[in-house]
This record gives sequence, C-alpha cells and structure tokens, in this order.
Amino acid sequence: MDARAYRASLNDGRRVYARGERVTDLAAHPDFAPNIERTAEVYDRFEADPEAREAFFTPPTTIEGMRHHAALHVDSATHTTYSSLMTLLTAADRIAAVRPQAAEAVAAYVAMVRDKDLRIAECITDAKGDRSRPPSQQEDKDAYLRVVERRPDGVVIRGAKLHISLAASSHELMVIPTKAMKPGEEDYAIACAVPVNAPGVSIVNVLNAAPPEGSDPRDFPFANQRAVPQGFVIFDDVFVPHERIFLDGEVKQAAVFAHSLGLWVRTSSMISMCDGFDVMVGLAQLIAEANGLERVDHIRAKISEMIIHSTLLRATLEASMVHAAKLESGVLAPSEIYTNAGKYHGAANYMVMVRHLLDIAGGSAITAPSMRDLENEDIGHLVRKYMGTRQSIDGAYRTRLFHAVHDLTTSAHGGAKYAGLLMGGGGLYAQNIVTRMRYDIERAKRMAFDAMGWSPERD
Amino acid sequence: MDARAYRASLNDGRRVYARGERVTDLAAHPDFAPNIERTAEVYDRFEADPEAREAFFTPPTTIEGMRHHAALHVDSATHTTYSSLMTLLTAADRIAAVRPQAAEAVAAYVAMVRDKDLRIAECITDAKGDRSRPPSQQEDKDAYLRVVERRPDGVVIRGAKLHISLAASSHELMVIPTKAMKPGEEDYAIACAVPVNAPGVSIVNVLNAAPPEGSDPRDFPFANQRAVPQGFVIFDDVFVPHERIFLDGEVKQAAVFAHSLGLWVRTSSMISMCDGFDVMVGLAQLIAEANGLERVDHIRAKISEMIIHSTLLRATLEASMVHAAKLESGVLAPSEIYTNAGKYHGAANYMVMVRHLLDIAGGSAITAPSMRDLENEDIGHLVRKYMGTRQSIDGAYRTRLFHAVHDLTTSAHGGAKYAGLLMGGGGLYAQNIVTRMRYDIERAKRMAFDAMGWSPERD
Amino acid sequence: MDARAYRASLNDGRRVYARGERVTDLAAHPDFAPNIERTAEVYDRFEADPEAREAFFTPPTTIEGMRHHAALHVDSATHTTYSSLMTLLTAADRIAAVRPQAAEAVAAYVAMVRDKDLRIAECITDAKGDRSRPPSQQEDKDAYLRVVERRPDGVVIRGAKLHISLAASSHELMVIPTKAMKPGEEDYAIACAVPVNAPGVSIVNVLNAAPPEGSDPRDFPFANQRAVPQGFVIFDDVFVPHERIFLDGEVKQAAVFAHSLGLWVRTSSMISMCDGFDVMVGLAQLIAEANGLERVDHIRAKISEMIIHSTLLRATLEASMVHAAKLESGVLAPSEIYTNAGKYHGAANYMVMVRHLLDIAGGSAITAPSMRDLENEDIGHLVRKYMGTRQSIDGAYRTRLFHAVHDLTTSAHGGAKYAGLLMGGGGLYAQNIVTRMRYDIERAKRMAFDAMGWSPERD
Amino acid sequence: MDARAYRASLNDGRRVYARGERVTDLAAHPDFAPNIERTAEVYDRFEADPEAREAFFTPPTTIEGMRHHAALHVDSATHTTYSSLMTLLTAADRIAAVRPQAAEAVAAYVAMVRDKDLRIAECITDAKGDRSRPPSQQEDKDAYLRVVERRPDGVVIRGAKLHISLAASSHELMVIPTKAMKPGEEDYAIACAVPVNAPGVSIVNVLNAAPPEGSDPRDFPFANQRAVPQGFVIFDDVFVPHERIFLDGEVKQAAVFAHSLGLWVRTSSMISMCDGFDVMVGLAQLIAEANGLERVDHIRAKISEMIIHSTLLRATLEASMVHAAKLESGVLAPSEIYTNAGKYHGAANYMVMVRHLLDIAGGSAITAPSMRDLENEDIGHLVRKYMGTRQSIDGAYRTRLFHAVHDLTTSAHGGAKYAGLLMGGGGLYAQNIVTRMRYDIERAKRMAFDAMGWSPERD
Repeated sequence: MDARAYRASLNDGRRVYARGERVTDLAAHPDFAPNIERTAEVYDRFEADPEAREAFFTPPTTIEGMRHHAALHVDSATHTTYSSLMTLLTAADRIAAVRPQAAEAVAAYVAMVRDKDLRIAECITDAKGDRSRPPSQQEDKDAYLRVVERRPDGVVIRGAKLHISLAASSHELMVIPTKAMKPGEEDYAIACAVPVNAPGVSIVNVLNAAPPEGSDPRDFPFANQRAVPQGFVIFDDVFVPHERIFLDGEVKQAAVFAHSLGLWVRTSSMISMCDGFDVMVGLAQLIAEANGLERVDHIRAKISEMIIHSTLLRATLEASMVHAAKLESGVLAPSEIYTNAGKYHGAANYMVMVRHLLDIAGGSAITAPSMRDLENEDIGHLVRKYMGTRQSIDGAYRTRLFHAVHDLTTSAHGGAKYAGLLMGGGGLYAQNIVTRMRYDIERAKRMAFDAMGWSPERD
Repeated sequence: MDARAYRASLNDGRRVYARGERVTDLAAHPDFAPNIERTAEVYDRFEADPEAREAFFTPPTTIEGMRHHAALHVDSATHTTYSSLMTLLTAADRIAAVRPQAAEAVAAYVAMVRDKDLRIAECITDAKGDRSRPPSQQEDKDAYLRVVERRPDGVVIRGAKLHISLAASSHELMVIPTKAMKPGEEDYAIACAVPVNAPGVSIVNVLNAAPPEGSDPRDFPFANQRAVPQGFVIFDDVFVPHERIFLDGEVKQAAVFAHSLGLWVRTSSMISMCDGFDVMVGLAQLIAEANGLERVDHIRAKISEMIIHSTLLRATLEASMVHAAKLESGVLAPSEIYTNAGKYHGAANYMVMVRHLLDIAGGSAITAPSMRDLENEDIGHLVRKYMGTRQSIDGAYRTRLFHAVHDLTTSAHGGAKYAGLLMGGGGLYAQNIVTRMRYDIERAKRMAFDAMGWSPERD
Repeated sequence: MDARAYRASLNDGRRVYARGERVTDLAAHPDFAPNIERTAEVYDRFEADPEAREAFFTPPTTIEGMRHHAALHVDSATHTTYSSLMTLLTAADRIAAVRPQAAEAVAAYVAMVRDKDLRIAECITDAKGDRSRPPSQQEDKDAYLRVVERRPDGVVIRGAKLHISLAASSHELMVIPTKAMKPGEEDYAIACAVPVNAPGVSIVNVLNAAPPEGSDPRDFPFANQRAVPQGFVIFDDVFVPHERIFLDGEVKQAAVFAHSLGLWVRTSSMISMCDGFDVMVGLAQLIAEANGLERVDHIRAKISEMIIHSTLLRATLEASMVHAAKLESGVLAPSEIYTNAGKYHGAANYMVMVRHLLDIAGGSAITAPSMRDLENEDIGHLVRKYMGTRQSIDGAYRTRLFHAVHDLTTSAHGGAKYAGLLMGGGGLYAQNIVTRMRYDIERAKRMAFDAMGWSPERD
Repeated sequence: MDARAYRASLNDGRRVYARGERVTDLAAHPDFAPNIERTAEVYDRFEADPEAREAFFTPPTTIEGMRHHAALHVDSATHTTYSSLMTLLTAADRIAAVRPQAAEAVAAYVAMVRDKDLRIAECITDAKGDRSRPPSQQEDKDAYLRVVERRPDGVVIRGAKLHISLAASSHELMVIPTKAMKPGEEDYAIACAVPVNAPGVSIVNVLNAAPPEGSDPRDFPFANQRAVPQGFVIFDDVFVPHERIFLDGEVKQAAVFAHSLGLWVRTSSMISMCDGFDVMVGLAQLIAEANGLERVDHIRAKISEMIIHSTLLRATLEASMVHAAKLESGVLAPSEIYTNAGKYHGAANYMVMVRHLLDIAGGSAITAPSMRDLENEDIGHLVRKYMGTRQSIDGAYRTRLFHAVHDLTTSAHGGAKYAGLLMGGGGLYAQNIVTRMRYDIERAKRMAFDAMGWSPERD
C-alpha cells in the first residue's frame, strides 16, 4: 500500500465523530489531516524501501537487534501495529493449550494484516463504570465490553473502548479484555479483531495535543508533527465472525492479552522517554547557551540533575535488553522488572525535567512572540532586536528555541505528552505493582539473613 | 468608569499586535475579547457597589483586614493595578530621602489613577540580551530599558519589557528597573509611568493559555475564564514628562521598586496558589467519587498527600500575615520570609499536585469526548452511557469533571498557569535567595552553639 | 521536691532491668545516671524558682502564652508530665457524660501529682502481637493490655506497654488504650494510673542513643545531654484501685485519651523539630564557614533549601497557634491539621536536612579525631595543625563542630533522634490520616465547583 | 601469608593512636581486634584456596567476569588492596609518556605487593585547610601533602591524609594527589607508596561504627561484622626512595591517580549499595511479615517503592558493565557515566530506603529489649511473650529482626554506613559533575534540533 492507496482506504464508510459532529472527509478534517499525512509518508517510505518495512515488522532475536529496533525512527502510527502483532504472537503461545483454534486464527489474521499492509489500533481499556465493582456487578452490564449474543457464525459484542490512539485512521481494531476475569464473567472474556468500518462501530475523537488552528508551525514544532487524535470507540452490537475471535469465555486466560500488550506498550514508552529525556537535556543546554547562562552554577546543577535522570532511565532500558527473556519463537521480550521500574521512574520524574527546563529557559518560554510577529513589517525588526542575545545569537534563533521549550512543556501538546506517558500502559500504581510482582522477594529475604549472619533455621 | 466607558477607553490609538498583525478592534479580537469582557464586568460591579471598590483598593492595616482582602474574589485584571499602587506607595517612602520630588510625583499619580479609575500593568523584566553581562556591557545597549535623551521637560526612553500581563487592555504602564544598578548605569535607573497609547509604545501579544477557538466553554471551564494575553512591550523612544518620573539616575535605589513589587506579586501568587491547591484537592475528591474509587487506599493516600501540601502552603500564608511588617503608613506588608518560602514550596511542588490529580482521574482526563459529542443526536446517548459511573453519577456530570481536570492540568491553560506560578515574581532560584536573605542566620548559629552546650568564646 | 528528694524517691522497690540484668542502684547505672541527673537539676531549678514551675505546668490560654510556653527550655523529662496532665484534663471533659466518676478521679489524681511534684510517663502503645488482627482476635489475649480480673476495690490488669520514655525514672505511669475499641472489647477499654513501683510492674530498658561509654563529652555534645532510656513496661497482673481508674469498659470512648495525648505529643515534637531544624541550619553555616566554603554556590543552595524546610515547619507551628481551639476550660489546644501536616513534613524531610548537613561538612564529620587525640602529648599538635582551616579558625574549634555534626546526624544519638521524631506520635501514615480527617474536604469540593463556574444542582 | 603471619606482621613498630592514646597491642585493642580478625580470616581462606586469591586479584576482561567479580563476597579489607592495584595499573598507562620510569616503578611495586601478599590503604584526601584556596595559597603550606626536601636517593614528604579506611591494619599506604594541580604547585604533585611503619608516619583512629562495648552480637548483627576504624594519617617528614615514587612534579598528570581510583572506589560502592538495597527490601518484607502487616496496602506501597529504587540502582550497575571500556591491558573498566549516575541516585535516596524500613518496622526498631533481656531468668519469658506475633512467629525471632533493622539504619553503624556511602568517592556534587562530564551533551543538542525538525544551519 502506498500513500495514495492508504488515503483511499479510509473512505470505507467508517463512522467517525469529532467536535460534536460526524466527520465526512477524514483526510481533510483539521483534527485528522496532519496525522494521516504522516502515516501516508511512512507508507511511501516503506513502498520505496521494502527492506525497511521488513526490518520494522520483524521482531528482534538478539540484543543488537533490540538496540537497532529501538533506534528506528518510525512514525508513532506504525508502532501500534507493531505492538499489536507482537501482542497477538506472544499471547497465541500462551492460550494454545486452552483454545487450539486461537493459534490458527491469530496466524491467519497476522498474515492477512501483513499481506494487505494494514494498520491496527489497540483497544483495551473499557468504560468501567463504577470502578469499585467488577464487570458483572455493574449497574450497566455493558460497562465492560461483552458478548451479548452468540450466533452459529460468530458473536455480537457491545461496549466501549477508551483512549484509543489512531483508531480513526487505522484499518483494524484489536479488541482485548482490559483485565483478568472471574468465573461467571465468561461473556467479558472476549478478544477479537474488528474492521474499523464494521457496522455498529463508531469512533468519537478528541485532539487535545493540537497546536492552535492557523498557528505557524515554527511556533509549535513538536505539536505539529506529533498530535494524535484519541478515539472513544463504541461497539454497538457489532458482529464478529469466528475466524476473527482469539478468546471467548476462557476467563483464566483473559489477562494474557493485556499482559502481553502491556510489556510492548511500556517498552515503546520507555524508548520514547529515553530519547525524550535526552531531547530535554539538549534543549536545556541550548537555551542556557542562548541566554548566556551556561556557566552559571545553579543552571549547571539543574542540567546535571536532568542528565542523571536521563542516564538512570537509559540504564533501565539497557538492563531490560541485557536481561531480555527469550520466547519460544526465539523473539526477545524486554525484561519486565527493568521496563516497569524505568517507566515508573520516568513518569514519576518527568515533571522534574520539565520544571528544570522551564526554570532554565525563563519567562519567554511562555511569552515569546510568534514567528509571524518577528516577520511583521512594522514591528518585526524590534521584536528580533529585543529577543536577541548578542550578534552571534540572533532573536529569531533564540525565539525558536523558546517556542520549542514551550511546546515540549506547557503547551497543549506538552501536557498531552506528559499525561500520555504518565497514564499509558497504566498509571504509576500499575507499574508499581508489576515491578513488585517481578522482583525476587524471597532472594532478598535470604540476602537479609545472610547479611545478618543468621539463619533462623539453624541458630 | 463603567463597562461601556472602559471599552471605549481602549480605542485610544494604542498599537497592539497579535498573531503577526496589528490589531484594529481590540474588544472584538478573539485573543483579547474574553479578558476585556471580564475586566468590564468588574467595572460594572464596582460601579454598582462603590464600597467594594473602596475595600479592594484600600490596603489592610490589621490582620483581619489582610485575611479579608486575601479572600476577595476580584478578577486578575484588578490585581495588577492594586499591586502597582501598593508598590509605588511602599517605594515612595524609601526613596524620599534621595529624590524628594518622587514622593510628590507618586502621590499625584496615584490620585490621578484613582480619580480616573484606571488600570495599570506592571512593566519590570527587561529583554536582558546576554544574561551573563550587566546592562552596560551588552552589545546592544538597549537590552535593558534606558534613558536615551534628556530634555528640559522630561526624558526619552528606549527598550523593551517582557512578560507583561494585561498590557494591551490597561491604561497605564508602570515602568521600573528590573534589578539593582551600579555606578555608571545611571541611564538604566529609570522608573516612570507611561500611558499605553503614548507615541513609541507597541505591544506584541501571545495568548498561550487560551482554549481552542470555537470550543465549547464547558470543555475548558478554567481557560475560558482566566486566559490572559502576555504583552511584549516595546518602548521605541518614548517621551516621559518629569511629573511621571519616579526615579532617574539614583542607581542605589534602582532595586527598591522591583523589591517592593516582588513582595506584592508573590503575595498575590501565594493567595492564588493556596486557593488553587484547595481546588485541586476538591477536584481530586470529586473525580475519585465519580470513579467509585474514593475508598481505595492508594487513592486516599494521594489525596492525603495533596492535602498536606495544601495545608503547608496555607500555613505559610497564615504565618506571613501573623508576622506582617507595619509600614510607616500603617499598611501591613506580609512577612517576606514566609511568603517566599511558601511561594517556593508551592511552585516546586505544584506538579506533584497535578500528577496526583491526573493519576486519580485516569486516562479520560485527556480523552473525554467533548460536551457537544455528548449532545450529538446520533451518538450522544451512547457516549453518555459509557461515560457514566452508575445511575446516580451520570455521564455528563462525570465528563465535565474530566474536562475540569484536563483544563486545570495539561491543557494549554493548565500549562500556562503552572509556568506563570513557577516563574512569576522570579523563578525558584529567586525565592531561594530571598528566603535565605530574610532568615536570621546569626540566631541559628547561636542556637547551634547553645544546643551543643558550648560557647567558643568561653570554653 | 528537690534534687535530693527526687533521687531518694527512686529507691522505692521498682523493678528495672537493663543489659539483661536487674538494676539495683538506678542513679548509679550508666544507662540511667545522666538522665536522672538532668531531671534532678530541673527539680532544683523549680525549687529555687517556684514561679517557673507554675509557668511550666499551667496551660496557656492566649496565643502569646502559647508562644511563651513553646519557648520554655525545660528538660524532656518534664515534658511527658506536662503532656500527661494536659491529656487527662482534655479527656476528662469528653468522657464526663458516660463516666461521671472519671472527672472526679482525674481531678483528684492531677491534684495529687501536683502536690507531690511527681513525674509521669505516658504508657500507650501495646505489644499488639499480630497487627493484622484486633485485640480480641489475637492468639495471645494479652497482646493488648486488658483487665483480667474485677474486684470490689478495683481491677487487675495484664499486658505490656512499649516505647515508654522515662518510665524507669518517673513516679507514675499513665496507662491508656492505644486505639479505638469495639463492642466485645470492653476489657481492653481501660485507662488508669499506676505507680512505677506497683507490684507486678517491671521495666526493661534499652538506651540506643547513648555515646560510647567513657567517651569525651566534647565528642558527643548532644548525646551526652539528651539520651533517654526507652522502657518496655510489663504489667503482670497489677492491681489498680477504683480511684485510679479513668475508663473501664466504655469502648466508644477508648480512643479519647490516645487522641488527646496524640495532639500534645505531636505539638511537643513540632516545637522540638522547629528548634532542631534551626540548629541544623546554624551548624551547616558554621561548618561551611569553618571549611572556608560559605560562598560556594552549591553550598549556599543547600543551606537555602534547609532554610526553606525550616521556615515551612515554623509556619505550621505559627498557624497551629493562630488557629488554636479553645477548650471548655479556656485552655488553647493547637490546631490539629497544622500540627499534623507540620509533623509529617518535618519527619518526612528530616533526612534531607541531615544529608545536606553531612554533604556540607564533608568526610571529617565521621572521621574527625577525638578531642583527647587533639590533646595527646605526642601527636596532638599535629592533629590540631591539620584539622585547622587557617590561623583564625583553629583545629580544635573546627573539630568540635565536626563532632557536633556527627552527633546530630549519624551517631547512635542522631539515629535515635530521627527515629523518635519519625515514629513518635505514630508514623507518617498516622499523621497522613489525621491531616486528612481534619481537612474540610466538602469546602474544597465547593471551591472546585466555584472555580469551574459550575453548579451541578443548577446547570 | 596466613592469619598468624598477618597478625605478626602488624608488630612492626607502627605508630597508631586511638581514644587519645598510643596503641601498643593493635590486635588486642577493642577498636581494631574485630577488623583484624576478619582480615586474618580472609588470609586463611586464601591460603587454603589459592585460586580464590588469584580470582580475586585478577581484574576481569569479560562482562561475565565482571559480574562474577562483583558477586565475590570478600571482606572489605581486601577491596582497598584490589582498588589500589587497579588504580596503579590503570594510571601507569596514562603517565608513561611523561614519566617513563613510573611504569617500571609501578610494575615492581605491584609485583612486590603480590609476592609478599600485602594489604594497601588508599591515601587520597588531604587536610585541605581553607577550602576556598588552592594548595599554594594556604596559610599553612602543608595543608596539602607535599615534598619538603629532595635528596639524591628520594624525597621527604609532609602533610596528612584523612578518612583512610584500614590504614592501621594494612602494610602499605598508597599516597596520591587529591586533585589536579597547577603550574607552581609541583611539590604537591607527588604520588608514592609508603610502608605503614615508615619513620614519621602516625595514624590517629576513630571508630564511630562500632556497637556498644560489651553488647551482645545478636543485638548488632551488622556493626559487629563490619565496623572499620578510620585513620587520620600524618606524614611528618617521611622519606620516600625513588623506586617508590610514581609521580613527582608532573602537575598536568596529578589528577590521573585520583581519577582512576575514583572509578574503582565508586564501583565498589555501587556493588555494595546494590546488595545493600536488596538486603533492606528483604528485611522490610521480613519485618512486615513478622508484624502481620505484609498485606496492608500502604506497607506494600512502601516496599514497592523500595524495590523500584533497588531495581534502578541495579540497572545502572548492569549498564555500567555492558558499556564497560576496554583498557589497553584488556581489563574492563566500568562505564563512568552509569557508575556515577547510579552512585548519585543510591546515595541521594539511601535515606528513603531507611525511612520506609523504619516506618514499616515501627517503634520496636529502636526500643526492642536486648537478647540478654530475653534470656533473663526473671523476666525473659514475659519479654518473649510480648515481643511475639503469634505462635508461629515467636518473640526471639521478631526481636532479632528489630535489632537488624535498628543496626542497619539508626545505630552508630547504620549512620556510619550511610555517611560512608554518601561521601565515599566524593559527595553528591562530585558525582553530579562527573556524570555531566561523561554525558554527550553535543549529541543531546543534535537530538533536540532533530526532534524540532529544524536545522539552524539549513533553515
């Protein structure tokens, strides 16, 4: 599929809403156009270089391969497809025993997606209703997505999936249970694949990360490239044929998919945060230099603290690869404990990075005039004059750095990015729990006794 | 002046720029209209209740008065006028000895402002150029605002003032030096008042805190009420007559105004943060209840930590009033050490409040559909269904709470608010220094010796 | 009672243990002698100045009185007696309705203690056994102190009370329930007063805060003055006559005493921490000056951060007095929310103060030679030479400062002091909970709605 | 050398002081005996197993070798010898060009140390006097150790070295400059080896980490095994022959030794902290279980946070090995940036681990009766009764855990351990600087521009 074919593929009758209205021409709508354009570019890039596509979609089996894959700069749109495929392949192994046909269904589905070169969105979080109650105890039984009817040729599902990045601009929805289920909750133990344009599917979107409409791209260098609409996906009695069902009623295995997805999603977040932290350090140094402050002690101390956070984070990424687990397929899955501890540390301290970056930049990070003001015929020369540092650091250069700081930190994009990292793959509490689960606490207890020189059994 | 008169007063030939262009009709421009409307409302309110105006503009002389004044809910537009008047009155005392005519000039100016019921913007931060160099060592001598010509009837000033809230919608600009000056920097020791429409004055504006244009006010409940354009004010050879000059060349006194302003600005920030922290606690509790999570231990622990931060902050406000300093005029000025320590703690920990609030709210804080989506005829009923908790907590109610969380934290408004509190009245380093300066370190040293039971002089 | 009478009063047959053995001569035992000596000195001081005694034991009824009382430098031994009396008086009001005779018993007891000039230890924490179970569900029913027999003239109690400062050197034990009790736990709802030498009472002591035996007092300036033995008090079927019983079986009121004591204990902790933080700041500045480092930027930044913590803490003390609650008796009780928030902040950040102090002092804080080494005939002159900074700051002076830093931070005394502040009056979680309980969350919720400009009832 | 030979080797006329007096019988002195005994045991162990000695003293050349070496549990006494040898070998390469004879001297010295199986102490930190001044500007020129006389056969040195672990019980002192020197400071650029018993050498010791004299070893399980005296080493005109001189006057290379040592010392600290953090986690879990609190949410949350810190630290150790640098000799030197960032994080957060551990354990961590009290005939059975949790967790077991918590955190040993980790290899500021120096800031700046999609050169 090339860019043109991709754009055309979106005109398939899908029901997409935004700003309170049905969207008729997705590729022309301001909330979707930039993202679709970036996705289309990747299609063209892969079309021109099939090896790059192959390299991206093939999971690594060596540590060098993991490092290489981590360094690939592919558009975020492509990542969810990769994570979805990895999730299905990883999970298929684990449910083969209880649902033999699932392995086959997964294999066929993965092959189809690759053949047709489709894009997948990950649908996991349910509406959840009253979060103090399990699915079966909700006042509204649809608060968690469930099977409402079983037919000879498949099932009918009802419910909603929230926080779905890229739903409106993908082709497929991978639908999986959000958590473990218990006996009696069989109808909620459903995993399957649904085309975006299936009857009964509606996607309501918000785009909080966007730059102000009509603004100059230089004023919002990050938002312009990265804003992604978030879909609220409604499944209003959607039929799913058997061959697209990966789990149906096996409550014990309900969490397998979410668990698999969690690891791949958090790994993506970790890689993205590692690079993002380095970008913040670099920007802090650039703006300190542009302000003439790079030698001031408290500025240097702040940059050092940023560097330490960045280095700690990268250390966890390194450790997660060195201690990767080899799956049966030979694919290397990053170590969960290091991935989770790193994700926790990064998310918990993200705003310390932001605070230092803002504090180093100073007030112009939020009040710098727009680039168009710098080019205004009347007044632009004066704005440039007063935004300049000295002859070797002119006003336009410095102003663009301020806009970058702003857009990375306190713009709508900066906020959305932070919130996404904080809550993506579960909030801090979720990482907290997974790290504890993966830690060998019995070994630590033995180490404590050894350090005391005491064996309670013996002494 | 009433609302109508206020609106009319803005058509005075002022040169205002935004989005790269000159603004011709200020009150109709989307960046200025909401703010002007709120300011106009306060004019009407004060017109209807002159005592309220009197109460607001009269500085307190008792602790009860301070508490009462702190509790006044007056639009932010009014606060800068109050701070400016307080600054001038406080500073006038301190420069009377070296510049007797200043006291007279200040008194006349304050009377004029009150008589005409004008609004003042505080112009303090200079362009600063290369921040490693003092004003007189800059490549561009105008990097700090200065006197470029002296005439029999006044002076001509040149330079720029940055981060000026409300500049475009006020009547007067209070211009003061940004810091202490040294011998040889006499031209930079200039404090004066300039009408916004004075020839040579241009104001370039940005409005980073605004909600997306055309968005529903319910989706951005804070941004809609509070977004304030930030002015970059250029003084391109502006004439200032003697009667509007409060300092000119007295380098030793250059910091007096900035110092005075600093206290009043930080006090405003403190009051605003105290209330803001309580609002965040309240919202955290509301969303926890709406999610059905208010009894979960880790949610309660997060809210408790928010409460502790909020209580610490309010304690510093209380202590700053209890230990207020009585000025010669009888006015009570809040204690500097408590104000600065509180401002520091609040700004340094603001994002911990935000992180907890987001973490408690969950992903819908950034992905909740818009209120218009909830009202869409096709799909609205389903969005409401899936956003609801249970019958007693419906989808519309909960969605509005999510929008409130979003707009208070990671929207453009949330980011701008945080950045403003972090950097307003100087960044963390500035509060750090002032707190140390106001702390009685000699007493602490004596306490240390006493605690050791040792007197080096004696033993 | 004067010092001599006090010392004599301890020879009353009390059963005290330490270091694995029964202590026969308390005042001569190295673990008890220093503390007994300090207590005796206070007796002599009060004997010489009865007004000072009166001032100390009279609870304040005005804010000035509270400040004055907070500033009294009375030995820690006296404080527990004060807290105990305040606790009984405060609690008596609250239980008068359900147990009329208790008010009388309290009044008589308080009068007796004052007349005889006795010292009281506060016995609250039970052994608790398995902390996941309530008193009545323990395998060993004595895990919480309880009434095991009721006689016509009183009751017999059994159990243990832990962490009892000064038990061995006081005259009276105030025994109160450690927490709220439920119906069915009547035997555990017992509050009474027991003489230290009552048959069946044994006190096992540890003294972790002591300096090494035989060490020079100048090497441990704090430990020498302040180390207090901690008693593990066993009540092995101790008879208590009716007139010494303040609660017996009223389960609903079981927590009243603990609650009252909690406030007075935490208030003492707060005052002690406020002064302690200032002492640490003073010592940090002294050692920075002695090292010649007081102008280095990162040293100043650390001292500033210490000052900010110290100022925040003092602000909570100030606010707790300004918002004190007036009891029926006219006595002012400090505001609970500010006291708890302050205690939490101080305890949670205590080690930040310590870390900065150590980091500023450098390695000699743990390796400085002893004062006796400085006086050694062979080598002392060389130790003094190399411990000196310059002629104006000699080696002996600087070494004593290092010893002070050591003894305040990482000596056995420093550790015990920290642990005492962290866990005294309940750990961080306890303060966390009390702060939340005292916070007006409903007001915060209303403030949130007001800030949103939304009333769910109306709109 | 075996244990007997080692003990005998210490009777060589060395001048050792402690507690204000000259020590005549080192092996019998309470401050030295335990440490000498542990060192002697290692001699015997290596004597019995020469391969273990070989394995320990041979530097690793593969990552597996690094991991294996990191896991060796050898007494701390041995580590300084290893670090010293590594330092000399690493440094020899770097100074060969400017001082060819140094390589030879190092080689001969290393061979001699190995042949005779000696122990070396690392002497780096000078007295430093007024720390605001360089060596040559001190009032006392001996504030930094220097050459005071040059003779045909060697040099005479004068000065003091501080914080020297194990000085009194080693055979050799490796003396190196504490920092970079400047032209004019040639006399301070001296590195050499000095026998502990060389004329003019005196060692004044303190032992702050020791348990109370006469205490039961079960009450102080860590202090008993680990307390190490700290030496203040005075060089009062000590002659050093040419063959023991490694640097003399080459100011540019003065920092090479300190730099090399720094890496090996910080690596030791890191390994020790990684294990120590796991021990704290294990102990926290053990005491939580012993208290019956292991399922309480806030206890679990604290243990999880401890686990995350522990995991972050171990990740930096892993990353430091994966990114080790290969020296010319083939030896792998751990990556400096990861080692320093890890050391910083560990030291800065050590007390968070301690605070959680204490908070989980509760007050008995500082007030638990001694093991001898538990064995007292009169009262021991009652102490055991009340220290017990339930039948399956008896009082003696639980009490030993409390003692372990105490001794690891707030005992003199706990404090000394923390201070040692905080200040060993330089304080936080030192690690902060080294991390920044090793970070590729230019790459981060390029990443920032790339992320902005902007090339200032091009656009």
